[in-house]
Amino acid sequence: MRIKVINPNTTAGMTAKIGEAARAIAAPGTEIVAVNPAAGPVSIEGHYDEAVSVLGVLEEVRKGEAEGCDGYVIACFGDPGLLAAREVATGPVVGIAEAAMHAASFISTGFSIVTTLTRTCVIAEHLVERYGMHRACRKVRGTDIPVLDLEGTGEEAGEGGGPVFRAIVAECRRAAAEDRCGAIVLGCAGMADLVARVQREVGLPVIDGVAAAVVQVEGLVRLGLGTSKHGDLAWPLPKTYVGDLARFAPAAR
Amino acid sequence: MRIKVINPNTTAGMTAKIGEAARAIAAPGTEIVAVNPAAGPVSIEGHYDEAVSVLGVLEEVRKGEAEGCDGYVIACFGDPGLLAAREVATGPVVGIAEAAMHAASFISTGFSIVTTLTRTCVIAEHLVERYGMHRACRKVRGTDIPVLDLEGTGEEAGEGGGPVFRAIVAECRRAAAEDRCGAIVLGCAGMADLVARVQREVGLPVIDGVAAAVVQVEGLVRLGLGTSKHGDLAWPLPKTYVGDLARFAPAAR
Amino acid sequence: MRIKVINPNTTAGMTAKIGEAARAIAAPGTEIVAVNPAAGPVSIEGHYDEAVSVLGVLEEVRKGEAEGCDGYVIACFGDPGLLAAREVATGPVVGIAEAAMHAASFISTGFSIVTTLTRTCVIAEHLVERYGMHRACRKVRGTDIPVLDLEGTGEEAGEGGGPVFRAIVAECRRAAAEDRCGAIVLGCAGMADLVARVQREVGLPVIDGVAAAVVQVEGLVRLGLGTSKHGDLAWPLPKTYVGDLARFAPAAR
Amino acid sequence: MRIKVINPNTTAGMTAKIGEAARAIAAPGTEIVAVNPAAGPVSIEGHYDEAVSVLGVLEEVRKGEAEGCDGYVIACFGDPGLLAAREVATGPVVGIAEAAMHAASFISTGFSIVTTLTRTCVIAEHLVERYGMHRACRKVRGTDIPVLDLEGTGEEAGEGGGPVFRAIVAECRRAAAEDRCGAIVLGCAGMADLVARVQREVGLPVIDGVAAAVVQVEGLVRLGLGTSKHGDLAWPLPKTYVGDLARFAPAAR
Amino acid sequence: MRIKVINPNTTAGMTAKIGEAARAIAAPGTEIVAVNPAAGPVSIEGHYDEAVSVLGVLEEVRKGEAEGCDGYVIACFGDPGLLAAREVATGPVVGIAEAAMHAASFISTGFSIVTTLTRTCVIAEHLVERYGMHRACRKVRGTDIPVLDLEGTGEEAGEGGGPVFRAIVAECRRAAAEDRCGAIVLGCAGMADLVARVQREVGLPVIDGVAAAVVQVEGLVRLGLGTSKHGDLAWPLPKTYVGDLARFAPAAR
Amino acid sequence: MRIKVINPNTTAGMTAKIGEAARAIAAPGTEIVAVNPAAGPVSIEGHYDEAVSVLGVLEEVRKGEAEGCDGYVIACFGDPGLLAAREVATGPVVGIAEAAMHAASFISTGFSIVTTLTRTCVIAEHLVERYGMHRACRKVRGTDIPVLDLEGTGEEAGEGGGPVFRAIVAECRRAAAEDRCGAIVLGCAGMADLVARVQREVGLPVIDGVAAAVVQVEGLVRLGLGTSKHGDLAWPLPKTYVGDLARFAPAAR
Repeated sequence: MRIKVINPNTTAGMTAKIGEAARAIAAPGTEIVAVNPAAGPVSIEGHYDEAVSVLGVLEEVRKGEAEGCDGYVIACFGDPGLLAAREVATGPVVGIAEAAMHAASFISTGFSIVTTLTRTCVIAEHLVERYGMHRACRKVRGTDIPVLDLEGTGEEAGEGGGPVFRAIVAECRRAAAEDRCGAIVLGCAGMADLVARVQREVGLPVIDGVAAAVVQVEGLVRLGLGTSKHGDLAWPLPKTYVGDLARFAPAAR
Repeated sequence: MRIKVINPNTTAGMTAKIGEAARAIAAPGTEIVAVNPAAGPVSIEGHYDEAVSVLGVLEEVRKGEAEGCDGYVIACFGDPGLLAAREVATGPVVGIAEAAMHAASFISTGFSIVTTLTRTCVIAEHLVERYGMHRACRKVRGTDIPVLDLEGTGEEAGEGGGPVFRAIVAECRRAAAEDRCGAIVLGCAGMADLVARVQREVGLPVIDGVAAAVVQVEGLVRLGLGTSKHGDLAWPLPKTYVGDLARFAPAAR
Repeated sequence: MRIKVINPNTTAGMTAKIGEAARAIAAPGTEIVAVNPAAGPVSIEGHYDEAVSVLGVLEEVRKGEAEGCDGYVIACFGDPGLLAAREVATGPVVGIAEAAMHAASFISTGFSIVTTLTRTCVIAEHLVERYGMHRACRKVRGTDIPVLDLEGTGEEAGEGGGPVFRAIVAECRRAAAEDRCGAIVLGCAGMADLVARVQREVGLPVIDGVAAAVVQVEGLVRLGLGTSKHGDLAWPLPKTYVGDLARFAPAAR
Repeated sequence: MRIKVINPNTTAGMTAKIGEAARAIAAPGTEIVAVNPAAGPVSIEGHYDEAVSVLGVLEEVRKGEAEGCDGYVIACFGDPGLLAAREVATGPVVGIAEAAMHAASFISTGFSIVTTLTRTCVIAEHLVERYGMHRACRKVRGTDIPVLDLEGTGEEAGEGGGPVFRAIVAECRRAAAEDRCGAIVLGCAGMADLVARVQREVGLPVIDGVAAAVVQVEGLVRLGLGTSKHGDLAWPLPKTYVGDLARFAPAAR
Repeated sequence: MRIKVINPNTTAGMTAKIGEAARAIAAPGTEIVAVNPAAGPVSIEGHYDEAVSVLGVLEEVRKGEAEGCDGYVIACFGDPGLLAAREVATGPVVGIAEAAMHAASFISTGFSIVTTLTRTCVIAEHLVERYGMHRACRKVRGTDIPVLDLEGTGEEAGEGGGPVFRAIVAECRRAAAEDRCGAIVLGCAGMADLVARVQREVGLPVIDGVAAAVVQVEGLVRLGLGTSKHGDLAWPLPKTYVGDLARFAPAAR
Repeated sequence: MRIKVINPNTTAGMTAKIGEAARAIAAPGTEIVAVNPAAGPVSIEGHYDEAVSVLGVLEEVRKGEAEGCDGYVIACFGDPGLLAAREVATGPVVGIAEAAMHAASFISTGFSIVTTLTRTCVIAEHLVERYGMHRACRKVRGTDIPVLDLEGTGEEAGEGGGPVFRAIVAECRRAAAEDRCGAIVLGCAGMADLVARVQREVGLPVIDGVAAAVVQVEGLVRLGLGTSKHGDLAWPLPKTYVGDLARFAPAAR
């Protein structure tokens, strides 16, 4: 099976890291295609960044259909463009925020999310509501780490992990101490390579959405479940798109 | 005051109609600038259409800032790109769905929404939740009228109003009879010119979001209230956007 | 257009202040009639005060109908008698709490309310629920300032504003620091004259419900929207009221 | 123990009926004082009627304190003035809607409410939300029977019960057939004498709020639980009330 | 009337204490039969303990039916087996958590729960949701007192009450100071003998679920209300149970 | 990896069917151990059946720990004993109702559940709430098919499938026509062998919880995620259990 893992931002280093995390968890026989759009923001740290990134996500899904992809992962914690992507996909499309929260809800009765900038907490909180996780999610915690500062915090940061890694661990520990949570969700695809080391330091189960989403997509594909083409997730109605966006026009099927 | 009313789809005829509805309600001294993006779908009838339309909405808001606009209306019932648009606006940005629902909640304890395609009902239902209107909104009703079939249903359709108009009236009457609602919200900017005639036929107060949003923006501007620049609606962080979307990069301020 | 702004308590000084705030925001051509009932509590600081004040509110609305008022503002943060007032009004009736919360929800994704006595916080919290603002409202904060202590805290208090003003500013700052809120709602009509100065001190958008409600009523009237006379807000059924309250009996229409 | 059962409307015949229902269930040693205000509406069929009735309810509670009452029942299905009444009561105050819904939730996982005019359904629905009964309450059903038409429908109506009784039974049967409910709550104090006969006809447990509230108050008093005087239900702050309502001013304590 | 009060754990000392509390509140003419299962955990401090205890609860209810019991109290704050017990009971079955929360909601607009081990807080929180008490319940607070440490903390502990008693009082005081609550619910049947003394120390109304449930059951029985035998609480379908649990098989009726 | 699939009822035929469905979906290398308790009800059709079945579920999980099982599926649509089972498991424990609902929420914005007896609908509805699926789940539909009537409806029923199969298909079609749902969840483990054929007839994606739960457990195990041993799902506190249930006592660890 071929799963396309889409990093909605355009930073190739992060795409590589996400691809590695995806491949590390993928089942034998699963091919991971990790990509990022050719155009868009280098990181996603707000509603605006996210909204602009959606176009690239949709383009990658549409290309994926032509490439015979069986399913898709949207690898940004805001799950940008999720429902739109589902409209243009045959197979399942899973966001890393939803995958991580669902996984956390299976192994604990309460989890906290540790994310990057405080200004993005509200994005996660809106998803918590949308996914019905308001009882399971105890708190969303910002660390005010810019997304791109997560680069270079992996194993290569050496013993101790560097200040960014330490800040994440510290916030996870505060969550463990104050939120009565049984698990922690890391709220950024850029943290995908940190999950094992954070878990070691914190003691609680720590969940990375990239890996969680890959196994979720694999599972749905094995179940024979693609996106429902009945109702609002059916193929977009064929129609004209004009101007620079004409190529996004849905074809008749 | 200058209010930019953005039709997120690219059908000029609908933009003209929306502009007329906006001007008809605007206070003396309010200049209405009705626009649509140069690129994008000719109508919005699903998550995908909507997601692609967001880029044009954001471009128009950004241009509006340079043009000295005091506030913005997003004139599509899915309120596409609302939070992203707020990040790049100084003044208030109001969607027609939220404006219409808020207005309905001031004059009734329960309203129903009559919209176009059934497949878009779920979009309205998600907004109902997001805006906290789940108690006030009794039902979202689809009519399966394609958005562009609304063209030519205004006064020019003559006595009786034509089959599209009749279908809308019929659904509104069903709502009045079955939903125990005190008001009806028309769920498409393309219905902006029908509101008075529908109300005449149906008896209940009928609300068009375009007009409702214009007075809402006027009110907020008069109150001296722009979009809060504290927290998640603050200006987007300056950063690089690459490729075709480079021009969307937020500038340093 | 004529809007009656009803201060539900009987303190003329507060009525004058509320009237000024209303007139300061009203559009040219809007006549503000600021009144308070002849009978009732001098301030409203609990469920009981509020319940007794409702009679005066209703009397003023009924008189307003005879006087040709086009809409009404209920200028107490508990929105006392709101639905009952709507039953006896042709035009729209808007409470200052609902107007302020709706306005705050248009310019931020989260707001906090700063009110007077802690014992009234629960009243605001109940309204937050009733208006579907539980996601948008981050916190309701009491200051334990008695309502009538707000008299004399306006510009006349001079440089610095006096201890009551300082206490309000201090609580708003705590909200800004701790609640991750983008805007603040002042939770008492008696704070109507403080809003500009508080905003100056606090930095965040600060919202006064009196002004917010006036523009809301103006907007609804311009939209041609009065209270729906279909369903539970229809005119009260004509019937006998006995004793001292006989004059409140709804007439046949 | 002395329990005051307050019929908020001024129809003595209904007060007598309510008093009988209360006495029929009261424990030995419980004295039931059934009263109605001297002033106010002869029946309560909307927000306005209800709001005006509150004054009489509060007056009766205040007199009850002087008379040594141990607890209070508010015998109208809108529970008018409930929180205000609690502020001026030492003992517990229970509304018949809340008592009936709580009782229904103990004996079933879902109940329906059968009430009088359809326009009052929304009042019951708001209470359902306020009391957290949205999961337990399957539906609120209006019968469009005016409250005063309930007079003369008791045993005296003879075999079969007359058309009003039949209409209630018919609606209860529809509830049983369509709502998947395990119990039915009668939504009007004026139905207090019908409960046994309706239950006989319908088969399901049928609950009258008057009786339910009497046993609830008795229970709370026996538990030594009065209204909490900590927080928002503490005695109203002593202050001046002016004009005709001066006598409602809370005394210093 | 005969009410069976079932202590779901197997500690006879706690059963005796619970029986005393029940008898102390029971009306003249009410016979309290306090029992505990012959088999099961000596205390209930988690989901697992609770799940195993259900079998004993059901056995006691089934025996109670043969013994002519009119109603049942499940005297553990997790209300274990509540809906299952209702299926096999003719009369009402009330859990102490639900009884206590309902009572608290009648006398305050907000209450806090003080319970034993922090790990059981989530059990109480789930019940808060299930009973619709999420608005009324301000906080659930653990004290990390093991259930069996509550033995010997009654009057016999003498002046001051011993460290366990002091810890409970301290947590109640924190609730009163920090939670803006008007009442406190003691979250363990083992605290039944402490309620009066805790209330004396804390000042707020304090509620013990055992007593609250007894009066609730008495009230329902007097109202003629048993468990609804319509729908999901109807008698279990007669069927075969095999093995050691064969004796639990529901008989045909 | 070894996954134990526990059929909580004691009907071996159903266990075999469930085991087959589990093996059909399991990844290469996954060993499915399908079991049912030695004692308990032959089918689960209500709260009582379910409550009694929990003991067997817990016993099987405890044995599974000794047998080196990596994870568990509880194969009854009420997810009986889920949280208790998690306390005694090292690996993940997933219920088929939660797995099916989560899967449905990934491929549609709204699903309906088609289950067996109407009296069990409320059990599914409670789970919908508990799992935060109230927005995603459009309706729970009973078919009044007894669980054991599902035996013999598989392929062996031949062309057309027999009346039980036809009834399920008919209800699914009603869901598709009336509920605006994009997917259907089959609400009974006994339907595990029907899913492909039902989907063929109905057109919409149809989800069987047994298969969904197996892939979910596999995924969690591959992610290295077991049940969190922090908080309420930590190992049960070691303590004495007396009588017949002594063997259920949690050991010290």
